[in-house]
Amino acid sequence: MKNEATVNPWEVKGEIDYDKLVKEFGTSIISNEIKKKFSKMHPLLRRGVYFSHRDFDKWLSAIENKKKISVLTGRGPSEKMHLGHLVPFFVAKSLQEEFDCQVFIPISDDEKFYVKPGLTIEKAKEFALDNILDLIALGFKPGKTLIFQDFIYTDIYKYAAQCAKKITYSEAKGVFGLTPEKNIGWSFYPAMQAAHILFPQFKEGKHLTVVPVGIDQDPFIRLTRDIAESFNFEKPAALHAKFIPGLSGNSKMSSSDTTNDVIYLTDTPEEVKKKINKYAFSGGQKTLEEHRKLGGNPDVDVSFQYLKFFFEEDDKKLEKIEKDYKSGKLLSGELKAILIEKVQAFLKEHQSKREKARKDVDKFLIKTEKL
Amino acid sequence: MKNEATVNPWEVKGEIDYDKLVKEFGTSIISNEIKKKFSKMHPLLRRGVYFSHRDFDKWLSAIENKKKISVLTGRGPSEKMHLGHLVPFFVAKSLQEEFDCQVFIPISDDEKFYVKPGLTIEKAKEFALDNILDLIALGFKPGKTLIFQDFIYTDIYKYAAQCAKKITYSEAKGVFGLTPEKNIGWSFYPAMQAAHILFPQFKEGKHLTVVPVGIDQDPFIRLTRDIAESFNFEKPAALHAKFIPGLSGNSKMSSSDTTNDVIYLTDTPEEVKKKINKYAFSGGQKTLEEHRKLGGNPDVDVSFQYLKFFFEEDDKKLEKIEKDYKSGKLLSGELKAILIEKVQAFLKEHQSKREKARKDVDKFLIKTEKL
Repeated sequence: MKNEATVNPWEVKGEIDYDKLVKEFGTSIISNEIKKKFSKMHPLLRRGVYFSHRDFDKWLSAIENKKKISVLTGRGPSEKMHLGHLVPFFVAKSLQEEFDCQVFIPISDDEKFYVKPGLTIEKAKEFALDNILDLIALGFKPGKTLIFQDFIYTDIYKYAAQCAKKITYSEAKGVFGLTPEKNIGWSFYPAMQAAHILFPQFKEGKHLTVVPVGIDQDPFIRLTRDIAESFNFEKPAALHAKFIPGLSGNSKMSSSDTTNDVIYLTDTPEEVKKKINKYAFSGGQKTLEEHRKLGGNPDVDVSFQYLKFFFEEDDKKLEKIEKDYKSGKLLSGELKAILIEKVQAFLKEHQSKREKARKDVDKFLIKTEKL
Repeated sequence: MKNEATVNPWEVKGEIDYDKLVKEFGTSIISNEIKKKFSKMHPLLRRGVYFSHRDFDKWLSAIENKKKISVLTGRGPSEKMHLGHLVPFFVAKSLQEEFDCQVFIPISDDEKFYVKPGLTIEKAKEFALDNILDLIALGFKPGKTLIFQDFIYTDIYKYAAQCAKKITYSEAKGVFGLTPEKNIGWSFYPAMQAAHILFPQFKEGKHLTVVPVGIDQDPFIRLTRDIAESFNFEKPAALHAKFIPGLSGNSKMSSSDTTNDVIYLTDTPEEVKKKINKYAFSGGQKTLEEHRKLGGNPDVDVSFQYLKFFFEEDDKKLEKIEKDYKSGKLLSGELKAILIEKVQAFLKEHQSKREKARKDVDKFLIKTEKL
């Protein structure tokens, strides 16, 4: 059992064999044929963080057949967002840019409220607004992007109720790891999440929605696919991501591990520099001499991974960095300096857009469907 | 175990020993001291259908001390309402008349939706509106009476979430008879019901609310009282009713038993006459001769019970009916004729008020708390 990986919505540990997961979950690998349908694919898709899917080929065919499609990805709001949280949103945004489609973003302030013992409803709502500003700052199209928050757009309860009626406690228990000691908000949340995923169809009729998620979240997709047809809806499609390491090289970037393992969207240029220099796991050698002689290993180097998946879109430039690092020409510190500059530039722009987003919130947020 | 009574929110059967229930549940008998505080008590209270309470004495003291108080009683909407459904509303209305207090009426269309397999959300909402018309027709004061329906006033979800966080699945299971095969809407409903009961305090701050309910519903009150203090709210008070028999004399009037066992608020004068003459259980003797000789038994006579609890408020008149019936002077058919006339008059007025209520719905219904 040693090194056996655990991958479910509540726990990710061990060395993950993604090919095995694809087989186990019954999903499909993102093929080159799919990749060819894009004019400009986000590095997260192009370079394999998103590696598996359900019905994404059908979603792309629907576009070719001029049928309505949409993208949905949600956020359980936390005190502040970090780079890892943006993964599905970068992809959602790139799909919106490429295909001019609607994006739906449910904000599950209620989930966080149920799950975190000390969290008040007011704080949960505060975190939600904070996170929404970060999402708007990413540049989603106003009018084509609908953000809704469970404790504000409470009409979602009607849709959740309709999903709840189709999910037994037994079923939810298996997928969500419910136990009798957990509160009954937790018991209900599977219905709320299914309502989120089906919301585009509840609102705008039957059509294909694709949901970019971490592969660990696939059980939620399956549960929702199971009930979709009973509403005469399309089964939602999914894009599955591998885990992007935290700065220390941990398999899943998470702010619950340690503050120094992630780059927050609010970090200052100095903090970015310090964190990357101090904590980013390096694939370089221990001494300058050794590095020049043996070269670094980009496959385990977190700075290189971040450039690859987030910050260096240019294939040629990335290739050169990789080559130079492997050959020992590029030192770890130099590689880190490249990343630091990119992250600082990104955050500078992001933080400025975030401030401007405050006045745009009403363009994105659905508050009620009542007159 | 023969004749052992079962009394819980999901089942009422057997011969019920109300004194034993009061002991078991730890409630108090409604005392003469309490009765003295009323200038005009509804027969349902005065004549003992409401027989037990929790903190109703505190509620009355609060009035004397010029403190805010309120009354709350809810309705799980059904296709159409019958006389038995009105029991808590007659009492709520009489409390409003006597003490000029606010009345809150939650309409749990969601509960019915979760529990009834074939019921759609649209039908549940339709039944809710239908039932609301009957409630408004009873004459509650506009401006002092707030009716809210879970699938319309979805902001209730925020309050339900706050209650949900304080109730584990284990706790809810015991009180609500949850099983793993039941849907997760059902699992969540205990939180919604607690939110209903605490709603007056969520909306208007800490104060005493009294809830008239059937004694079988007391476990819900207890669960809500258990969490009330953690919100710094008053524990809700309760008034407990005995079961009023159906026409056939069954212990709990219920339309799920049979259509002929209840008088619907939509029944025509002819239906009323036919139902009472044909189905109302009689305490009279088998033959005219025997009846004149031995007299009738008002204690088991359903027509007499209905006059006593609903339709003959005048103590002297009721006493005369009772005396004449016992002596054999008043025949069963004559007793039924008195009831028929009363019920027909009540329903004629009710049905006319019900039609007028359509234009008043907006004066009573809360739809949203959003601007």
